[in-house]
Amino acid sequence: MSNQQAVVAKETVVRPLWLGVDVGGTNIKIGLVDDQGQVVGKTSIPSQASSPPDGTLDRVVAAARELVAQAGFDWDDIPRVGLGTPGTMDIPRGMMLDPPNMPGWHFYPVRDRLAAVCGKPVSYANDANAAAFGEFWVGSGRKFPSIILLTLGTGVGGGIIVDHLSIDGENSCGSECGHIIIDHHDTARMCGCGQRGHLEAYASATALIRRCQEALDAGRSSSLGGRLEAGEKITPLLIAAEAETGDPLALELILDTAYYLGVGITSLMHTIDPGAVILGGAMNFGGHDTLLGRKFLDRIRAEVRLRAFPVLAEKTTIDFAQLGGDAGFIGAAGIARAAARSQGPAVNP
Amino acid sequence: MSNQQAVVAKETVVRPLWLGVDVGGTNIKIGLVDDQGQVVGKTSIPSQASSPPDGTLDRVVAAARELVAQAGFDWDDIPRVGLGTPGTMDIPRGMMLDPPNMPGWHFYPVRDRLAAVCGKPVSYANDANAAAFGEFWVGSGRKFPSIILLTLGTGVGGGIIVDHLSIDGENSCGSECGHIIIDHHDTARMCGCGQRGHLEAYASATALIRRCQEALDAGRSSSLGGRLEAGEKITPLLIAAEAETGDPLALELILDTAYYLGVGITSLMHTIDPGAVILGGAMNFGGHDTLLGRKFLDRIRAEVRLRAFPVLAEKTTIDFAQLGGDAGFIGAAGIARAAARSQGPAVNP
Repeated sequence: MSNQQAVVAKETVVRPLWLGVDVGGTNIKIGLVDDQGQVVGKTSIPSQASSPPDGTLDRVVAAARELVAQAGFDWDDIPRVGLGTPGTMDIPRGMMLDPPNMPGWHFYPVRDRLAAVCGKPVSYANDANAAAFGEFWVGSGRKFPSIILLTLGTGVGGGIIVDHLSIDGENSCGSECGHIIIDHHDTARMCGCGQRGHLEAYASATALIRRCQEALDAGRSSSLGGRLEAGEKITPLLIAAEAETGDPLALELILDTAYYLGVGITSLMHTIDPGAVILGGAMNFGGHDTLLGRKFLDRIRAEVRLRAFPVLAEKTTIDFAQLGGDAGFIGAAGIARAAARSQGPAVNP
Repeated sequence: MSNQQAVVAKETVVRPLWLGVDVGGTNIKIGLVDDQGQVVGKTSIPSQASSPPDGTLDRVVAAARELVAQAGFDWDDIPRVGLGTPGTMDIPRGMMLDPPNMPGWHFYPVRDRLAAVCGKPVSYANDANAAAFGEFWVGSGRKFPSIILLTLGTGVGGGIIVDHLSIDGENSCGSECGHIIIDHHDTARMCGCGQRGHLEAYASATALIRRCQEALDAGRSSSLGGRLEAGEKITPLLIAAEAETGDPLALELILDTAYYLGVGITSLMHTIDPGAVILGGAMNFGGHDTLLGRKFLDRIRAEVRLRAFPVLAEKTTIDFAQLGGDAGFIGAAGIARAAARSQGPAVNP
């Protein structure tokens, strides 16, 4: 899903401005966001995940200052900065712990270091919760008092926002929705985290590829076979392409993903009862823009209708996210804004 | 578990006082609670669940007035009343919808009717969330910023409190922790709610009895067989008694209950990451007072240690509740107190 938001004209910008920084294993996205959640400007720099991060944070702030200047604003127009990073992390202490894809950043006091370099207070959040806050503020979740965001990619990320409160947890492990158990048996699939039966072990891109390989190994006939013989690699995009040309196995594998998501979403609905469950991340099979994406969404909704309490099946919105890859920095900016407005611990301590 | 709290001496009571009303299918518990959560006095009256409830609410208020007078306080010492009822319900509108065991109370505007009879504002909550708030305020959860309470009885009830916020949900179906799915297969056990694979279908008293009957029907040898031939009925108490006298099947059935709870608790921990998970309700096998109760708790903790993220397995407290049957009215009183103090919608709209 590409970014749907154009950079806005200066006359429509509502001050104050907020800076959102979304740290990922490959890139760091930096966005200047106005008080209504409009993206005023954005840029990104490489993370250099295996190197010591001090120099990278200097470059983040340099890029941010340039972004602000280019948009015609002052650095002083920004009262506070929002920062999202992957876990594991210690949110109250502002520390990254040992995020698996960023070895150079382990046990790094990222919040206070960024605050020192940019000279502003920094609100710190898990990247998936920041993305959820973005969708909650100005995305698919903007009409609802509470949402759950599932981010479908290599893993299944999660973010939960209830009444503007991000469910960070006592140990910065809240909203890890990919790691709810949907099958308790010893025979359940193994998750990337080393435990069995988690939603992520069934519904992530990794899991889809594994289920595809197993089906082909078991001799299921599929047009995917020919593409592999031609030297291609199994990816969700390849499976989607074959599903779109009518391959029954490829479609079945995608709809099975939707089935597992329906199971997990039902558990989350019975726990949180949010206004909406939003599906973000790259693995959306085209979203509303393709027949396949709509079939995927319909299958999730159908499974939830079968399994959830009737009132929830009827009233809970289930839909794709709207902010694409911008959700993380928009949400980080929104969390900074909420913290500045409340001056309280609601979102960030 | 019996009530641990004695009625306190008048000198130690801290004003203002709060009245908590906990409506159940059989009895309505009424408690006078001081500003520190001490029980000043308590009583109960029959619910008359199949009759129109107006007269019953009149008797609730008459009993409450008597309770206040007997304790030597004035009705005016109570600024606000808290009310918990079983679901289904519409919390924002203050309505009971169709709680299964209270046919006479269906679609009854219980909050506003009680407010009219007692002449005070009333805060309204789900009974399981009220009990969770009680344990959070002055029970096993009092040291934690967030808790999950599982109430083990005929069903598995749930209450979630995060930063003083009760997770009521957008459709008054939040915190229904007994209805998370632990087995997605078509072969999973059927829950009382009509859906398959829910935690309650494995870990409730009803489920324990069913698993016991199945084991006996399958020819498993057990001292339970003799007690059934003597005309006794299978109950959790009977199974506990045989487990305590050394019957292996009875012990296995109880520890299997703990296993399923460990699975469900892990999912809830990965969603909420609370400071503590508290086990309330009648089915605690004696709690800390018996070897069997301690084995039950140890087995739950062991399963969570196997399955949860290491930091959560290490840091999250899992323990029995402390307030017994008083948790509901204490928590209802606490919710009224929180609403009066915040004058905001945090706990109750």
